[in-house]
Amino acid sequence: MKKYAIIVAGGTGSRMGTEVPKQFLLLAGKPVLMHTIDAFSRFEPEIKIIVVLHPNFYDHWHKLCADHNFSIKHVLAQGGAMRYHSVKNGLELIDSDGLVAVHDAARPLISFALINRLFSEAITQGSAIPALPVTDTIRTIEGGRVHIVDRTFLRTIQTPQVFRIGLLKEAYDQPYQNSFTDDAAVLEALGKTIHLTDGEPQNIKITHPVDLLFAEAFLNGKASDISRSV
Amino acid sequence: MKKYAIIVAGGTGSRMGTEVPKQFLLLAGKPVLMHTIDAFSRFEPEIKIIVVLHPNFYDHWHKLCADHNFSIKHVLAQGGAMRYHSVKNGLELIDSDGLVAVHDAARPLISFALINRLFSEAITQGSAIPALPVTDTIRTIEGGRVHIVDRTFLRTIQTPQVFRIGLLKEAYDQPYQNSFTDDAAVLEALGKTIHLTDGEPQNIKITHPVDLLFAEAFLNGKASDISRSV
Repeated sequence: MKKYAIIVAGGTGSRMGTEVPKQFLLLAGKPVLMHTIDAFSRFEPEIKIIVVLHPNFYDHWHKLCADHNFSIKHVLAQGGAMRYHSVKNGLELIDSDGLVAVHDAARPLISFALINRLFSEAITQGSAIPALPVTDTIRTIEGGRVHIVDRTFLRTIQTPQVFRIGLLKEAYDQPYQNSFTDDAAVLEALGKTIHLTDGEPQNIKITHPVDLLFAEAFLNGKASDISRSV
Repeated sequence: MKKYAIIVAGGTGSRMGTEVPKQFLLLAGKPVLMHTIDAFSRFEPEIKIIVVLHPNFYDHWHKLCADHNFSIKHVLAQGGAMRYHSVKNGLELIDSDGLVAVHDAARPLISFALINRLFSEAITQGSAIPALPVTDTIRTIEGGRVHIVDRTFLRTIQTPQVFRIGLLKEAYDQPYQNSFTDDAAVLEALGKTIHLTDGEPQNIKITHPVDLLFAEAFLNGKASDISRSV
Protein backbone atom coordinates (compact mmCIF):
# COMPACT_ATOMS: atom_id res chain seq x y z
CA MET A 1 0.00 0.00 0.00
CA LYS A 2 1.33 3.42 -0.96
CA LYS A 3 2.48 5.56 1.96
CA TYR A 4 2.69 9.31 2.36
CA ALA A 5 3.81 11.63 5.13
CA ILE A 6 2.58 15.21 5.42
CA ILE A 7 4.94 17.06 7.74
CA VAL A 8 3.40 20.28 8.99
CA ALA A 9 5.96 22.99 9.73
CA GLY A 10 3.73 25.90 10.58
CA GLY A 11 5.72 27.41 13.44
CA THR A 12 6.60 31.07 13.34
CA GLY A 13 8.77 31.15 16.45
CA SER A 14 6.60 33.19 18.80
CA ARG A 15 6.33 30.76 21.73
CA MET A 16 10.00 29.84 21.63
CA GLY A 17 10.93 33.50 22.01
CA THR A 18 13.17 33.11 18.97
CA GLU A 19 13.26 34.79 15.60
CA VAL A 20 13.78 31.44 13.92
CA PRO A 21 10.63 29.26 13.63
CA LYS A 22 11.14 26.13 15.69
CA GLN A 23 11.29 23.75 12.71
CA PHE A 24 14.55 25.46 11.67
CA LEU A 25 16.24 25.55 15.08
CA LEU A 26 19.39 23.50 15.27
CA LEU A 27 19.15 20.20 17.10
CA ALA A 28 22.44 18.30 17.33
CA GLY A 29 23.76 20.52 14.55
CA LYS A 30 20.86 20.05 12.13
CA PRO A 31 17.48 21.81 11.72
CA VAL A 32 14.65 20.10 13.63
CA LEU A 33 12.69 19.60 10.40
CA MET A 34 15.51 17.52 8.88
CA HIS A 35 15.45 15.16 11.86
CA THR A 36 11.71 14.77 11.38
CA ILE A 37 12.02 14.04 7.66
CA ASP A 38 14.86 11.58 8.43
CA ALA A 39 12.60 9.62 10.76
CA PHE A 40 10.07 8.92 8.00
CA SER A 41 12.73 8.20 5.41
CA ARG A 42 14.42 5.70 7.76
CA PHE A 43 11.04 4.03 8.28
CA GLU A 44 10.56 3.57 4.54
CA PRO A 45 12.90 5.10 1.97
CA GLU A 46 10.10 4.95 -0.65
CA ILE A 47 7.61 6.97 1.40
CA LYS A 48 6.40 10.16 -0.32
CA ILE A 49 7.17 13.12 1.91
CA ILE A 50 5.26 16.40 1.68
CA VAL A 51 6.53 19.26 3.81
CA VAL A 52 4.04 22.06 4.44
CA LEU A 53 5.81 25.37 4.90
CA HIS A 54 4.86 29.01 4.60
CA PRO A 55 6.10 30.26 1.20
CA ASN A 56 8.05 33.04 2.98
CA PHE A 57 10.37 30.30 4.25
CA TYR A 58 10.89 28.38 1.01
CA ASP A 59 14.16 30.17 0.15
CA HIS A 60 15.44 29.79 3.67
CA TRP A 61 14.65 26.07 3.59
CA HIS A 62 16.36 25.56 0.22
CA LYS A 63 19.44 27.30 1.58
CA LEU A 64 19.41 25.12 4.71
CA CYS A 65 19.13 21.97 2.56
CA ALA A 66 22.13 23.09 0.52
CA ASP A 67 24.17 24.04 3.60
CA HIS A 68 23.48 20.70 5.28
CA ASN A 69 23.78 18.58 2.11
CA PHE A 70 20.27 17.38 2.84
CA SER A 71 19.17 15.17 -0.02
CA ILE A 72 16.08 13.29 1.17
CA LYS A 73 13.47 13.75 -1.53
CA HIS A 74 10.36 15.72 -0.57
CA VAL A 75 7.92 18.17 -2.09
CA LEU A 76 6.76 21.44 -0.56
CA ALA A 77 3.14 22.42 -0.02
CA GLN A 78 1.97 25.86 0.95
CA GLY A 79 1.36 26.58 4.62
CA GLY A 80 -2.08 28.05 5.31
CA ALA A 81 -3.69 30.28 7.92
CA MET A 82 -4.46 27.42 10.33
CA ARG A 83 -3.22 23.87 10.65
CA TYR A 84 -6.37 22.69 8.84
CA HIS A 85 -5.51 24.74 5.75
CA SER A 86 -1.91 23.54 5.76
CA VAL A 87 -2.87 19.87 5.90
CA LYS A 88 -5.54 20.40 3.24
CA ASN A 89 -2.91 21.94 0.94
CA GLY A 90 -0.69 18.92 1.55
CA LEU A 91 -3.51 16.46 0.88
CA GLU A 92 -4.24 18.12 -2.46
CA LEU A 93 -0.85 16.93 -3.69
CA ILE A 94 -1.90 13.31 -3.13
CA ASP A 95 -3.91 11.70 -5.93
CA SER A 96 -3.62 8.01 -5.15
CA ASP A 97 -5.03 5.62 -2.56
CA GLY A 98 -3.04 4.38 0.38
CA LEU A 99 -2.16 5.67 3.84
CA VAL A 100 -1.06 9.08 4.97
CA ALA A 101 0.68 10.09 8.19
CA VAL A 102 0.19 13.70 9.26
CA HIS A 103 2.98 14.76 11.59
CA ASP A 104 4.19 17.88 13.42
CA ALA A 105 7.60 19.01 12.17
CA ALA A 106 8.34 19.91 15.79
CA ARG A 107 8.28 16.25 16.91
CA PRO A 108 11.67 15.06 15.66
CA LEU A 109 12.10 12.17 18.13
CA ILE A 110 9.39 9.91 16.70
CA SER A 111 10.60 6.30 16.60
CA PHE A 112 10.65 3.79 13.78
CA ALA A 113 8.58 1.42 15.93
CA LEU A 114 5.79 3.92 16.52
CA ILE A 115 5.55 5.00 12.86
CA ASN A 116 5.45 1.34 11.88
CA ARG A 117 2.72 0.42 14.35
CA LEU A 118 0.56 3.40 13.40
CA PHE A 119 0.67 2.53 9.70
CA SER A 120 -0.17 -1.11 10.48
CA GLU A 121 -3.12 -0.27 12.69
CA ALA A 122 -4.49 2.32 10.25
CA ILE A 123 -4.81 -0.38 7.55
CA THR A 124 -7.45 -2.22 9.55
CA GLN A 125 -8.85 0.63 11.65
CA GLY A 126 -8.97 3.45 9.11
CA SER A 127 -7.03 5.69 11.48
CA ALA A 128 -4.38 5.39 14.19
CA ILE A 129 -3.88 8.21 16.66
CA PRO A 130 -1.09 8.01 19.26
CA ALA A 131 -2.20 8.95 22.76
CA LEU A 132 -0.70 8.87 26.26
CA PRO A 133 -2.27 9.08 29.71
CA VAL A 134 -2.00 12.52 31.28
CA THR A 135 0.29 12.43 34.32
CA ASP A 136 -0.15 16.01 35.53
CA THR A 137 -3.24 17.41 37.19
CA ILE A 138 -5.29 19.35 34.63
CA ARG A 139 -7.69 22.20 35.34
CA THR A 140 -10.02 24.17 33.14
CA ILE A 141 -10.07 27.92 33.50
CA GLU A 142 -13.00 29.72 31.96
CA GLY A 143 -14.26 33.17 32.81
CA GLY A 144 -12.04 33.28 35.89
CA ARG A 145 -13.50 30.03 37.27
CA VAL A 146 -11.19 27.09 37.76
CA HIS A 147 -12.31 23.47 37.74
CA ILE A 148 -10.35 20.29 38.12
CA VAL A 149 -10.75 17.67 35.38
CA ASP A 150 -10.68 13.95 36.17
CA ARG A 151 -7.41 13.04 34.46
CA THR A 152 -8.24 9.32 34.43
CA PHE A 153 -10.26 10.05 31.31
CA LEU A 154 -7.76 12.40 29.66
CA ARG A 155 -5.27 11.52 26.95
CA THR A 156 -2.51 13.66 25.47
CA ILE A 157 -2.70 13.28 21.72
CA GLN A 158 0.47 13.12 19.65
CA THR A 159 1.30 12.85 15.99
CA PRO A 160 1.82 11.19 13.52
CA GLN A 161 -1.86 10.54 13.01
CA VAL A 162 -2.21 7.97 10.25
CA PHE A 163 -5.31 7.64 8.05
CA ARG A 164 -6.61 5.91 4.97
CA ILE A 165 -6.21 8.61 2.37
CA GLY A 166 -9.80 8.43 1.06
CA LEU A 167 -11.18 8.81 4.55
CA LEU A 168 -9.01 11.82 5.41
CA LYS A 169 -9.79 13.50 2.08
CA GLU A 170 -13.50 13.07 2.72
CA ALA A 171 -13.03 14.69 6.14
CA TYR A 172 -11.07 17.59 4.70
CA ASP A 173 -13.89 18.33 2.27
CA GLN A 174 -15.70 19.85 5.24
CA PRO A 175 -15.30 23.59 5.78
CA TYR A 176 -12.96 24.80 8.54
CA GLN A 177 -14.10 24.79 12.17
CA ASN A 178 -12.27 26.22 15.19
CA SER A 179 -12.33 22.81 16.85
CA PHE A 180 -9.99 21.37 14.18
CA THR A 181 -6.80 21.43 16.29
CA ASP A 182 -5.69 18.10 14.87
CA ASP A 183 -6.60 15.80 11.98
CA ALA A 184 -8.52 13.34 14.12
CA ALA A 185 -10.89 16.20 14.99
CA VAL A 186 -11.62 16.75 11.30
CA LEU A 187 -12.50 13.05 11.00
CA GLU A 188 -14.66 13.17 14.13
CA ALA A 189 -16.64 16.08 12.68
CA LEU A 190 -17.69 13.62 9.93
CA GLY A 191 -19.14 11.42 12.65
CA LYS A 192 -16.34 8.84 12.34
CA THR A 193 -14.81 7.07 15.33
CA ILE A 194 -11.06 7.47 15.61
CA HIS A 195 -8.74 4.69 16.74
CA LEU A 196 -6.49 5.67 19.67
CA THR A 197 -3.35 3.65 20.32
CA ASP A 198 -0.32 4.08 22.61
CA GLY A 199 1.99 6.99 21.85
CA GLU A 200 5.48 7.27 23.29
CA PRO A 201 6.89 9.59 25.97
CA GLN A 202 9.99 10.52 23.93
CA ASN A 203 7.83 11.89 21.12
CA ILE A 204 7.74 15.40 22.54
CA LYS A 205 6.77 18.54 20.65
CA ILE A 206 9.54 21.15 20.68
CA THR A 207 7.63 24.05 22.19
CA HIS A 208 9.85 25.75 24.78
CA PRO A 209 13.62 26.33 24.57
CA VAL A 210 14.19 23.67 27.25
CA ASP A 211 12.63 21.05 24.95
CA LEU A 212 15.53 21.44 22.51
CA LEU A 213 17.92 20.60 25.32
CA PHE A 214 15.79 17.54 26.13
CA ALA A 215 15.73 16.44 22.50
CA GLU A 216 19.47 16.83 22.15
CA ALA A 217 20.01 14.68 25.24
CA PHE A 218 17.76 12.03 23.76
CA LEU A 219 19.66 11.97 20.47
CA ASN A 220 23.01 11.85 22.29
CA GLY A 221 21.73 9.03 24.48
CA LYS A 222 20.62 7.09 21.41
CA ALA A 223 23.96 7.70 19.71
CA SER A 224 25.83 6.35 22.72
CA ASP A 225 23.51 3.30 22.82
CA ILE A 226 24.44 2.64 19.22
CA SER A 227 28.16 3.05 19.81
CA ARG A 228 27.94 0.78 22.85
CA SER A 229 26.16 -1.90 20.85
CA VAL A 230 28.80 -1.85 18.07
CA MET B 1 6.91 34.65 57.87
CA LYS B 2 7.83 31.07 58.67
CA LYS B 3 8.21 28.80 55.64
CA TYR B 4 7.78 25.05 55.27
CA ALA B 5 8.13 22.60 52.41
CA ILE B 6 6.35 19.26 52.39
CA ILE B 7 8.04 17.09 49.76
CA VAL B 8 5.87 14.14 48.81
CA ALA B 9 7.86 11.09 47.75
CA GLY B 10 5.13 8.56 47.30
CA GLY B 11 6.42 6.79 44.19
CA THR B 12 6.72 3.02 44.24
CA GLY B 13 8.39 2.68 40.84
CA SER B 14 5.60 1.01 38.86
CA ARG B 15 5.27 3.47 35.96
CA MET B 16 9.03 3.83 35.52
CA GLY B 17 9.31 0.07 35.09
CA THR B 18 12.00 0.08 37.74
CA GLU B 19 12.32 -1.65 41.09
CA VAL B 20 13.59 1.58 42.60
CA PRO B 21 10.90 4.22 43.28
CA LYS B 22 11.57 7.25 41.11
CA GLN B 23 12.50 9.55 44.00
CA PHE B 24 15.58 7.36 44.59
CA LEU B 25 16.73 7.04 40.98
CA LEU B 26 20.11 8.59 40.30
CA LEU B 27 20.08 11.90 38.48
CA ALA B 28 23.56 13.29 37.74
CA GLY B 29 24.93 10.88 40.33
CA LYS B 30 22.52 11.77 43.14
CA PRO B 31 19.01 10.53 44.05
CA VAL B 32 16.22 12.65 42.56
CA LEU B 33 14.85 13.42 46.03
CA MET B 34 18.13 15.04 47.09
CA HIS B 35 18.00 17.41 44.12
CA THR B 36 14.46 18.36 45.13
CA ILE B 37 15.42 19.00 48.76
CA ASP B 38 18.45 21.00 47.55
CA ALA B 39 16.20 23.31 45.54
CA PHE B 40 14.24 24.37 48.63
CA SER B 41 17.32 24.64 50.78
CA ARG B 42 19.01 26.88 48.18
CA PHE B 43 15.89 29.07 48.13
CA GLU B 44 16.02 29.55 51.89
CA PRO B 45 18.46 27.66 54.11
CA GLU B 46 16.13 28.22 57.10
CA ILE B 47 13.09 26.62 55.47
CA LYS B 48 11.67 23.64 57.41
CA ILE B 49 11.66 20.61 55.14
CA ILE B 50 9.33 17.65 55.70
CA VAL B 51 9.84 14.64 53.45
CA VAL B 52 6.89 12.25 53.25
CA LEU B 53 8.05 8.71 52.59
CA HIS B 54 6.62 5.28 53.06
CA PRO B 55 8.15 3.82 56.27
CA ASN B 56 9.37 0.80 54.27
CA PHE B 57 11.87 3.16 52.62
CA TYR B 58 13.15 4.96 55.74
CA ASP B 59 16.18 2.68 56.14
CA HIS B 60 17.00 2.90 52.45
CA TRP B 61 16.79 6.68 52.58
CA HIS B 62 19.04 6.92 55.65
CA LYS B 63 21.59 4.75 53.91
CA LEU B 64 21.42 6.91 50.76
CA CYS B 65 21.94 10.05 52.88
CA ALA B 66 25.01 8.48 54.49
CA ASP B 67 26.41 7.25 51.16
CA HIS B 68 25.99 10.68 49.53
CA ASN B 69 27.06 12.70 52.60
CA PHE B 70 23.69 14.42 52.35
CA SER B 71 23.38 16.77 55.30
CA ILE B 72 20.46 19.08 54.56
CA LYS B 73 18.25 19.01 57.63
CA HIS B 74 14.77 17.53 57.16
CA VAL B 75 12.24 15.47 59.07
CA LEU B 76 10.38 12.43 57.78
CA ALA B 77 6.62 12.00 57.80
CA GLN B 78 4.81 8.79 57.06
CA GLY B 79 3.57 8.19 53.52
CA GLY B 80 -0.13 7.28 53.39
CA ALA B 81 -2.44 5.34 51.10
CA MET B 82 -3.10 8.28 48.76
CA ARG B 83 -1.38 11.61 48.20
CA TYR B 84 -4.01 13.25 50.44
CA HIS B 85 -3.02 11.07 53.40
CA SER B 86 0.67 11.71 52.82
CA VAL B 87 0.26 15.47 52.76
CA LYS B 88 -2.03 15.35 55.81
CA ASN B 89 0.64 13.41 57.73
CA GLY B 90 3.18 16.05 56.73
CA LEU B 91 0.89 18.91 57.77
CA GLU B 92 0.42 17.37 61.21
CA LEU B 93 4.09 18.00 61.91
CA ILE B 94 3.55 21.76 61.47
CA ASP B 95 2.22 23.63 64.50
CA SER B 96 2.93 27.24 63.62
CA ASP B 97 1.52 29.84 61.23
CA GLY B 98 3.21 30.80 58.00
CA LEU B 99 3.36 29.40 54.50
CA VAL B 100 3.79 25.86 53.25
CA ALA B 101 4.86 24.62 49.82
CA VAL B 102 3.67 21.14 48.90
CA HIS B 103 5.89 19.68 46.21
CA ASP B 104 6.35 16.43 44.27
CA ALA B 105 9.69 14.79 45.02
CA ALA B 106 9.76 13.82 41.34
CA ARG B 107 10.08 17.46 40.19
CA PRO B 108 13.77 18.12 40.90
CA LEU B 109 14.26 20.94 38.36
CA ILE B 110 12.15 23.54 40.13
CA SER B 111 13.89 26.94 40.01
CA PHE B 112 14.73 29.40 42.75
CA ALA B 113 12.76 32.06 40.87
CA LEU B 114 9.55 30.03 40.75
CA ILE B 115 9.69 28.97 44.41
CA ASN B 116 10.29 32.60 45.35
CA ARG B 117 7.40 33.93 43.29
CA LEU B 118 4.97 31.30 44.59
CA PHE B 119 5.75 32.12 48.21
CA SER B 120 5.37 35.85 47.51
CA GLU B 121 2.03 35.48 45.78
CA ALA B 122 0.66 33.11 48.43
CA ILE B 123 1.16 35.80 51.11
CA THR B 124 -1.44 38.03 49.50
CA GLN B 125 -3.55 35.44 47.67
CA GLY B 126 -3.72 32.65 50.24
CA SER B 127 -2.52 30.16 47.63
CA ALA B 128 -0.27 30.10 44.57
CA ILE B 129 -0.57 27.24 42.08
CA PRO B 130 1.82 27.02 39.09
CA ALA B 131 0.06 26.31 35.80
CA LEU B 132 1.03 26.20 32.13
CA PRO B 133 -1.04 26.26 28.94
CA VAL B 134 -1.53 22.84 27.39
CA THR B 135 0.29 22.60 24.07
CA ASP B 136 -0.85 19.14 22.99
CA THR B 137 -4.32 18.25 21.83
CA ILE B 138 -6.24 16.60 24.67
CA ARG B 139 -9.08 14.13 24.36
CA THR B 140 -11.34 12.50 26.90
CA ILE B 141 -12.00 8.81 26.60
CA GLU B 142 -14.90 7.45 28.59
CA GLY B 143 -16.77 4.24 27.97
CA GLY B 144 -15.11 3.84 24.58
CA ARG B 145 -16.25 7.29 23.41
CA VAL B 146 -13.62 9.86 22.53
CA HIS B 147 -14.17 13.61 22.70
CA ILE B 148 -11.83 16.46 21.99
CA VAL B 149 -11.43 19.07 24.72
CA ASP B 150 -10.93 22.75 23.89
CA ARG B 151 -7.34 23.16 25.07
CA THR B 152 -7.61 26.96 25.19
CA PHE B 153 -9.23 26.49 28.58
CA LEU B 154 -6.91 23.78 29.87
CA ARG B 155 -3.95 24.25 32.18
CA THR B 156 -1.35 21.71 33.25
CA ILE B 157 -0.93 22.08 36.98
CA GLN B 158 2.51 21.75 38.57
CA THR B 159 3.87 21.86 42.08
CA PRO B 160 5.00 23.40 44.40
CA GLN B 161 1.59 24.60 45.43
CA VAL B 162 2.03 27.17 48.18
CA PHE B 163 -0.61 27.95 50.81
CA ARG B 164 -1.18 29.84 54.02
CA ILE B 165 -0.81 27.10 56.60
CA GLY B 166 -4.10 27.81 58.40
CA LEU B 167 -6.02 27.66 55.16
CA LEU B 168 -4.49 24.36 54.03
CA LYS B 169 -5.00 22.81 57.47
CA GLU B 170 -8.65 23.79 57.39
CA ALA B 171 -8.95 22.14 53.95
CA TYR B 172 -7.25 18.97 55.15
CA ASP B 173 -9.76 18.66 58.00
CA GLN B 174 -12.20 17.43 55.33
CA PRO B 175 -12.44 13.67 54.80
CA TYR B 176 -10.76 12.15 51.75
CA GLN B 177 -12.41 12.35 48.32
CA ASN B 178 -11.28 10.67 45.08
CA SER B 179 -11.05 14.07 43.39
CA PHE B 180 -8.15 15.12 45.66
CA THR B 181 -5.35 14.60 43.12
CA ASP B 182 -3.57 17.72 44.29
CA ASP B 183 -3.69 20.11 47.24
CA ALA B 184 -5.52 22.84 45.38
CA ALA B 185 -8.39 20.36 44.90
CA VAL B 186 -8.64 19.92 48.66
CA LEU B 187 -8.89 23.69 49.04
CA GLU B 188 -11.49 23.94 46.28
CA ALA B 189 -13.65 21.35 48.04
CA LEU B 190 -13.90 23.90 50.87
CA GLY B 191 -15.40 26.34 48.39
CA LYS B 192 -12.22 28.45 48.23
CA THR B 193 -10.90 30.00 45.02
CA ILE B 194 -7.33 29.04 44.18
CA HIS B 195 -4.81 31.45 42.68
CA LEU B 196 -3.19 30.18 39.46
CA THR B 197 0.09 31.70 38.33
CA ASP B 198 2.66 30.84 35.64
CA GLY B 199 4.58 27.61 36.08
CA GLU B 200 7.76 26.81 34.16
CA PRO B 201 8.40 24.32 31.34
CA GLN B 202 11.58 22.92 32.91
CA ASN B 203 9.67 21.88 36.04
CA ILE B 204 8.87 18.42 34.67
CA LYS B 205 7.71 15.47 36.72
CA ILE B 206 10.02 12.47 36.33
CA THR B 207 7.50 9.88 35.14
CA HIS B 208 9.04 7.90 32.29
CA PRO B 209 12.67 6.75 31.95
CA VAL B 210 13.24 9.32 29.20
CA ASP B 211 12.44 12.12 31.67
CA LEU B 212 15.58 11.26 33.66
CA LEU B 213 17.62 11.77 30.52
CA PHE B 214 15.89 15.12 29.98
CA ALA B 215 16.52 16.17 33.58
CA GLU B 216 20.17 15.23 33.39
CA ALA B 217 20.58 17.30 30.21
CA PHE B 218 18.99 20.25 31.98
CA LEU B 219 21.33 19.98 34.96
CA ASN B 220 24.37 19.59 32.68
CA GLY B 221 23.23 22.62 30.67
CA LYS B 222 22.90 24.66 33.84
CA ALA B 223 26.32 23.53 35.02
CA SER B 224 27.92 24.61 31.75
CA ASP B 225 26.10 27.98 31.95
CA ILE B 226 27.65 28.46 35.37
CA SER B 227 31.13 27.48 34.25
CA ARG B 228 30.83 29.78 31.23
CA SER B 229 29.81 32.70 33.42
CA VAL B 230 32.75 32.23 35.82
